[in-house]
Amino acid sequence: MTSADPDDTGLLAPGWTGSPGASATSDTAYLQALLDAEAALTRAQAALGLAPAEAASAVTAAADAGRFDVRSLAGRARAGGNPVIPLVADLTKAVGEAYGPHVHRGATSQDIMDTATMLVAARTLDLLLADLARAERALSRLAAEHRDTALPGRTLTQHAVPTTFGLKAAGWRALVLDARDRVTAVRDSLPAQLGGAAGTLAAFGAYGAGDPTGLPAAYAHELGLREPELPWHTLRTPVADLAGCLAFTAGALGKVAVDVLTLSRTEIAELAEGSGGGSSAMPHKSNPVRSTLIVAAARRAPQLAATLYGALVAEDERPAGAWHAEWEPLRELLRLVGGAARDAVELAEGLRVRPDVMREHLDLTHGLIVSERLSAELAPVLGRARAKELLTRLASEGRPLAEAPELADVDLDPTHYTGTAGTLTDRALERR
Amino acid sequence: MTSADPDDTGLLAPGWTGSPGASATSDTAYLQALLDAEAALTRAQAALGLAPAEAASAVTAAADAGRFDVRSLAGRARAGGNPVIPLVADLTKAVGEAYGPHVHRGATSQDIMDTATMLVAARTLDLLLADLARAERALSRLAAEHRDTALPGRTLTQHAVPTTFGLKAAGWRALVLDARDRVTAVRDSLPAQLGGAAGTLAAFGAYGAGDPTGLPAAYAHELGLREPELPWHTLRTPVADLAGCLAFTAGALGKVAVDVLTLSRTEIAELAEGSGGGSSAMPHKSNPVRSTLIVAAARRAPQLAATLYGALVAEDERPAGAWHAEWEPLRELLRLVGGAARDAVELAEGLRVRPDVMREHLDLTHGLIVSERLSAELAPVLGRARAKELLTRLASEGRPLAEAPELADVDLDPTHYTGTAGTLTDRALERR
Amino acid sequence: MTSADPDDTGLLAPGWTGSPGASATSDTAYLQALLDAEAALTRAQAALGLAPAEAASAVTAAADAGRFDVRSLAGRARAGGNPVIPLVADLTKAVGEAYGPHVHRGATSQDIMDTATMLVAARTLDLLLADLARAERALSRLAAEHRDTALPGRTLTQHAVPTTFGLKAAGWRALVLDARDRVTAVRDSLPAQLGGAAGTLAAFGAYGAGDPTGLPAAYAHELGLREPELPWHTLRTPVADLAGCLAFTAGALGKVAVDVLTLSRTEIAELAEGSGGGSSAMPHKSNPVRSTLIVAAARRAPQLAATLYGALVAEDERPAGAWHAEWEPLRELLRLVGGAARDAVELAEGLRVRPDVMREHLDLTHGLIVSERLSAELAPVLGRARAKELLTRLASEGRPLAEAPELADVDLDPTHYTGTAGTLTDRALERR
Amino acid sequence: MTSADPDDTGLLAPGWTGSPGASATSDTAYLQALLDAEAALTRAQAALGLAPAEAASAVTAAADAGRFDVRSLAGRARAGGNPVIPLVADLTKAVGEAYGPHVHRGATSQDIMDTATMLVAARTLDLLLADLARAERALSRLAAEHRDTALPGRTLTQHAVPTTFGLKAAGWRALVLDARDRVTAVRDSLPAQLGGAAGTLAAFGAYGAGDPTGLPAAYAHELGLREPELPWHTLRTPVADLAGCLAFTAGALGKVAVDVLTLSRTEIAELAEGSGGGSSAMPHKSNPVRSTLIVAAARRAPQLAATLYGALVAEDERPAGAWHAEWEPLRELLRLVGGAARDAVELAEGLRVRPDVMREHLDLTHGLIVSERLSAELAPVLGRARAKELLTRLASEGRPLAEAPELADVDLDPTHYTGTAGTLTDRALERR
Repeated sequence: MTSADPDDTGLLAPGWTGSPGASATSDTAYLQALLDAEAALTRAQAALGLAPAEAASAVTAAADAGRFDVRSLAGRARAGGNPVIPLVADLTKAVGEAYGPHVHRGATSQDIMDTATMLVAARTLDLLLADLARAERALSRLAAEHRDTALPGRTLTQHAVPTTFGLKAAGWRALVLDARDRVTAVRDSLPAQLGGAAGTLAAFGAYGAGDPTGLPAAYAHELGLREPELPWHTLRTPVADLAGCLAFTAGALGKVAVDVLTLSRTEIAELAEGSGGGSSAMPHKSNPVRSTLIVAAARRAPQLAATLYGALVAEDERPAGAWHAEWEPLRELLRLVGGAARDAVELAEGLRVRPDVMREHLDLTHGLIVSERLSAELAPVLGRARAKELLTRLASEGRPLAEAPELADVDLDPTHYTGTAGTLTDRALERR
Repeated sequence: MTSADPDDTGLLAPGWTGSPGASATSDTAYLQALLDAEAALTRAQAALGLAPAEAASAVTAAADAGRFDVRSLAGRARAGGNPVIPLVADLTKAVGEAYGPHVHRGATSQDIMDTATMLVAARTLDLLLADLARAERALSRLAAEHRDTALPGRTLTQHAVPTTFGLKAAGWRALVLDARDRVTAVRDSLPAQLGGAAGTLAAFGAYGAGDPTGLPAAYAHELGLREPELPWHTLRTPVADLAGCLAFTAGALGKVAVDVLTLSRTEIAELAEGSGGGSSAMPHKSNPVRSTLIVAAARRAPQLAATLYGALVAEDERPAGAWHAEWEPLRELLRLVGGAARDAVELAEGLRVRPDVMREHLDLTHGLIVSERLSAELAPVLGRARAKELLTRLASEGRPLAEAPELADVDLDPTHYTGTAGTLTDRALERR
Repeated sequence: MTSADPDDTGLLAPGWTGSPGASATSDTAYLQALLDAEAALTRAQAALGLAPAEAASAVTAAADAGRFDVRSLAGRARAGGNPVIPLVADLTKAVGEAYGPHVHRGATSQDIMDTATMLVAARTLDLLLADLARAERALSRLAAEHRDTALPGRTLTQHAVPTTFGLKAAGWRALVLDARDRVTAVRDSLPAQLGGAAGTLAAFGAYGAGDPTGLPAAYAHELGLREPELPWHTLRTPVADLAGCLAFTAGALGKVAVDVLTLSRTEIAELAEGSGGGSSAMPHKSNPVRSTLIVAAARRAPQLAATLYGALVAEDERPAGAWHAEWEPLRELLRLVGGAARDAVELAEGLRVRPDVMREHLDLTHGLIVSERLSAELAPVLGRARAKELLTRLASEGRPLAEAPELADVDLDPTHYTGTAGTLTDRALERR
Repeated sequence: MTSADPDDTGLLAPGWTGSPGASATSDTAYLQALLDAEAALTRAQAALGLAPAEAASAVTAAADAGRFDVRSLAGRARAGGNPVIPLVADLTKAVGEAYGPHVHRGATSQDIMDTATMLVAARTLDLLLADLARAERALSRLAAEHRDTALPGRTLTQHAVPTTFGLKAAGWRALVLDARDRVTAVRDSLPAQLGGAAGTLAAFGAYGAGDPTGLPAAYAHELGLREPELPWHTLRTPVADLAGCLAFTAGALGKVAVDVLTLSRTEIAELAEGSGGGSSAMPHKSNPVRSTLIVAAARRAPQLAATLYGALVAEDERPAGAWHAEWEPLRELLRLVGGAARDAVELAEGLRVRPDVMREHLDLTHGLIVSERLSAELAPVLGRARAKELLTRLASEGRPLAEAPELADVDLDPTHYTGTAGTLTDRALERR
């Protein structure tokens, strides 16, 4: 690698470098998807008698990313503003004189670019769903195992009342399942794109001397994508739906990660990542790196999604900018979320839980963590006002409540005040 | 009105002021929803035998926004950081000594705030859906009426090939239906919130001396909301889902509006809003104000949604900031989109279409708008290279193609080159 | 207040309700600023002999927000898409027949709206700067007082090496000063807006039968704003600059707040807000509400600023949407940041620091917090590899380092390993 | 290139691929900057006598990106969450046994990463400033040349009153100068980063057995960066300032581009890019590709900046996520804006202006474009009400105003109603 070589290898992206989603969204992966789209188009035309079968075979055979120079294509994409224009030239040449004219015939650049993007998205979402499934299983185990492990519930950074780690893990799992459901629905809806220059399919008819009405269905069938209701060059529902489900997934995983970060703090230490990141100078450090990188992804995803939602406002039959503004943010979202899911799997599978530390922390407030219960139980006896007065006084004194003679008969054990946490956990775990 | 009075009446918000969604999201509407949530809670407790029926009646009777001072509540909300704390004090007082202690019993502020937010959202989405339905009907009419009205398809600002206004309107309608489907799904999923201080429902048991497991269902039933799977104090799927469907709707309407803006330009004038906005000094001006305000909403919605997606990263059992950051952006989104839908109805119902101007514009490029067709038809005759050469030469000469002797036998009528636009329109209109 | 009344009083906005910035940005404040702009325009015309002095007096006398119905104006703003159109009608009427025709003469709505916005911004930034100054003074005191108070430096949530609370507070102060400098620069650059319908000042000449070149300067002088280099109807530098300095300030205060939130956690408790927010059911709770609300503002400000930066892309001489999309986000930013600064003052002035708790925490890792120092000191003696090996072993054993015979001669006191924190603090405090 | 190779070459990024900014921000460029930072640190230590001069020479000699495997570093960055950790290992090895221990001595990863980022930013901003200067010169020429070229002023998409292309170009130039000023100020303020593990510089003292107070200044001097006031590991002013000036620049160039897009529309055609992008199937198409790509950048930059402003909220002495979330968005901003500036140069230098078309369009409204002037001139003669009535009637009749007998004596030539456009242009061009 020389300094003249500007390729990116992920040096700034420990959150997704080396992940399955990184390969699935590389320039090479996009190039292959572009070629897959071109090949499928010729095959679909052949299937409807609009092109000879030999052309379909020839284009399919030539559509191998390994035979094209991605750097050259990137450079030549500048003139027309998209990579399909130079790719069509190169692919036509690769196919040869006989069938070259059938390459891209009747299509517009956006047909191929959008279709390729949907292919890349579909392939990446499949990998993402597999990681979400693994994370879900690990969280199920944690929730079941710690169904009755009590720890302080914390609100606005302060101990409130007890809860259980099982309920917390069940909540994390519920978010992961919500993400899975949203991603799955979008995955299954991803459409092929086919419309020609202005979305009327006119050129397919002009070239084929036939009715191209059935072409989008045949094309989608070749690709394993959904048939579009209409050409969607400027009806960007599929991209917006991707934005939504990916921003959601980033946030869902971010919730898990931020809880782990909090509970991993040196002073709290109720949780620890399986293998923390080290430091050369400070041998004691074990940093929660997986959570850190997930949170970093969750900080970025919403704004990337915002750019994509903004691109819905796309004028005419092809917009001057809104479409071009989608490409990199959508790829970045796919990568970030794919990487976060990979990290979430490691996080969930390796998480070390310290029930003893959790138990100790329940006593940090010397009984005040059950003051809500005391309010409830003392009110009928002492009256609401006197009960509150008593508790406020005891709280201000800073003494353990157990030493207060007025509370001699009350159950102050915080592990006995976890309400329906167990039942809620059980019920949540029934969801599949 | 004095300068000491900081109330907002919508002076800066012509996009939503006076709309149904504005009333449904006002401070008063939120106050009533907070009171509805409190009353429903006591009723649900009564239904399960955890509170006397008289308490339920008393709280319900007192829960009338007209009896509370919203300004005072707003001011007192500052100390604890949310308006529920002072409201509980005022409501308890309003209910009176006998049943006052049953107000808010066992609940946490977030139970009430989140539930009220869902009520406000449900009520506003119902209004939004009604306007989307009206807009959809008007767009259906436009699409059907102009099924075969040809106009230039435009890509990257330039004439490309012909399309039809019917297909364009059918695309707008498809986006509105996509919005309707997304909003409806979210509307039907909005859950009540009930968990108590840390989401374990513990206090409901402590106060009621019983099993509160059934309480969330009873509470949701009272409110007409969905029963939550788990308390979702920091599992913010419902808020993120609202963000997604609202950002989508804003963008969908923004696509319609940006097309109207473009086609309303003085030089294009293929479309005009039914009643444009005027100017005192320039009597000829008729500004596309409805489209302008819709586009303004669409420019803002994605970033508001981003803030809400970002709030998914909510630590602990109640976060210090992420939750508080949701309130105003969610309301703003509801308002903006509600206002945009109102404007979209007026836009769609009043839109003036000028088929004659569209027809004239098809000739602006002197036949080049069908050059794609010529490429397709000439290539088999002349060979691909010579066909292209010929067209490029003719294009550069700037003469009408109809005068070129080489093209004497070719159909150059742009209205004959709209491909399957009619069929696509018909098919799209079958969707309900 | 009835349910027909949609006014907002700040019920959802504990972060800014009741703050000076709230009044300075209310609808009434905007109305007054709009009137101030109109009056200044007539006065400037009079000063240049383009209008009679009596007209200037009459318009100035009439330009009192208390005499106008802001709600009615808001409602009527919808037709033309901005509130200036109905306001000119009402103001003309209020001025009366004789001088009414001099109201708004030659101006366009945007001249008045933009100028009013700059007036509101200037007035709000002055209040903001006062609060930043107070916060800065309080932070200076904290930094000086705790120059040598050692506490754990934390990186990626884990104890790293010691630092001092003085250095931390000095860093907070540096951010507040950075905010002050950025806000001050923008405050001093805010321009008046004057261009007429398309920015050529043509109508001022047509009406005044004279050369209007000097009018913008005279107008700006009347308003205490800067003379614009050019009419900036679609050259939105002033709005973008406001976005930048306000987003910066929100983030700067957010950094202070997030540190306070972290160090206020029940398990850490090195800091506490002066008066925490309470809870009705849990008498022991003392929530860091000021920090919470500041963080909430900091979560929202960047996306509001993004909308404003996006509005730079404003087509033509007045854009259809980009301008309208600025109004509410800019006000919201001013309010949020004004409110956050108010909270930052209370936070900084009331902050309770617990040096004893900080000191205790330095021992939580049993000496490992100075392992970096040990690495440095042992390496020359034992060699780098053996030194690291020794420390890693000791760390894994979990015993206090002080008990390790190999370290008998080493200074393990963490308060002796704060490097140049004191000097850095001193130097930072020299900045004014 | 094989499918196992996930390198990015810019296939999805025609907006910046191949630009100077692309090379300056490549992974290789970052790697070199990281090495430059390490080498400067050892040299600075040597300059202060804290390291032997030979160590400085050895590290400097080894610090050549061509000798390191960027892909391997990227992969190994994952464990600790940043690329400095593996780089220190590789660099230490490359330097060799004698002086290897002096590599990175006393520093923390963030010292190197942040410093390298500032180096990359400084180098990219220099390139950006050169392109802004070229664009400014081209715009100056356009403004001067077309000082008196009249064209329709357009507001809310409609013809309003005449303006000049000179004034429009002068406005574009003013924005470019605003961008230049903001970028220059930030460029000159970029600081080195040096603090050690928690910002106290402690380890530099421990290793060097001396006072490290002067080290940051020496380090900054070696790098040509500014000496930091304080270590800014979590005081992220430099990053926020970069975000602000880059988002501003993107928007400033976006304004130019959106105007070109509008005025390039087939129906308007007052402007054309020097060399438009073509289409294989439609030989007549000449797309405004440069403007399209600039607008695409301007749609993305604000949200990238929002992520960076959000990262100001960085807890502790090094945050778990906020810092990591900065890296890619900042690089992306640098690239996007660098690419947009390159395109802006081509756009401005090649822009084709068609004064004749502009002149024709002034007559499109048959004289109504000067109705403002008529209002002004007729009002004193006919009275305001009758004047308005007359104009409204004439406007509704659609006849050329020149034919109206009532206007026989009025100057209806739109080129005579450009107000002070010429003077404003002259004055604006005086700014340097």
